[in-house]
Amino acid sequence: MTNNAGLDLTFAACAHPIRRGIIERLGVGEMTVGEATAGSGVSKPSISKHLRVLEEAGAIVRVIDGRTHRIRLSEHALDDAQGWISDQHALWERKLDVIEGYLAEQRARRARDDLPTEEGPV
Amino acid sequence: MTNNAGLDLTFAACAHPIRRGIIERLGVGEMTVGEATAGSGVSKPSISKHLRVLEEAGAIVRVIDGRTHRIRLSEHALDDAQGWISDQHALWERKLDVIEGYLAEQRARRARDDLPTEEGPV
Repeated sequence: MTNNAGLDLTFAACAHPIRRGIIERLGVGEMTVGEATAGSGVSKPSISKHLRVLEEAGAIVRVIDGRTHRIRLSEHALDDAQGWISDQHALWERKLDVIEGYLAEQRARRARDDLPTEEGPV
Repeated sequence: MTNNAGLDLTFAACAHPIRRGIIERLGVGEMTVGEATAGSGVSKPSISKHLRVLEEAGAIVRVIDGRTHRIRLSEHALDDAQGWISDQHALWERKLDVIEGYLAEQRARRARDDLPTEEGPV
């Protein structure tokens, strides 16, 4: 089984609409916490909790400039999650390739067996 | 903010090593629950709970054949999660393109301003 605490945290970070919303907004660049969460209709303590989940997952970085807290996406924010999902798709593709290869071989064999040859019986 | 209950469930399903392990094993094809979870060192009730999370997320499908429960990946198991992450990466790439374009323009302008021309002052 895949024991990877980093993946646990990244996927959990993505599993809430408020946190996905923050990630989406930060796509355009660094901003204040207020800008990144405006209109979410969520209390400040709740926002702080969501930000902590994102920070612990390594998805965002907090930049403290005097009294202003700004946040931005970390450079490789979702790379591990994307990597794991891509690996799974690659495995499934390989499985389909094997099945397709087997079917093609069966078809070729059947076609060969149906063909009369000079050496074999007709 | 992104309200998408399906994404919540898919990401939450991926946020546990036992559940990721089951998804990984099912990559080779349909199997019994026992085969998909062998060696995980987890109790049967716990396994049942993890399978329910995967089923509710639409990641796996259960096939009941008499007394045997077999499970397999559903056809588009992680497509929504992969789609969302890819969308974010696409946004970041576009942002980087804009920044690169701006820098290239600045460089070109500086080079132009530094060049002496016949018309302008040297």
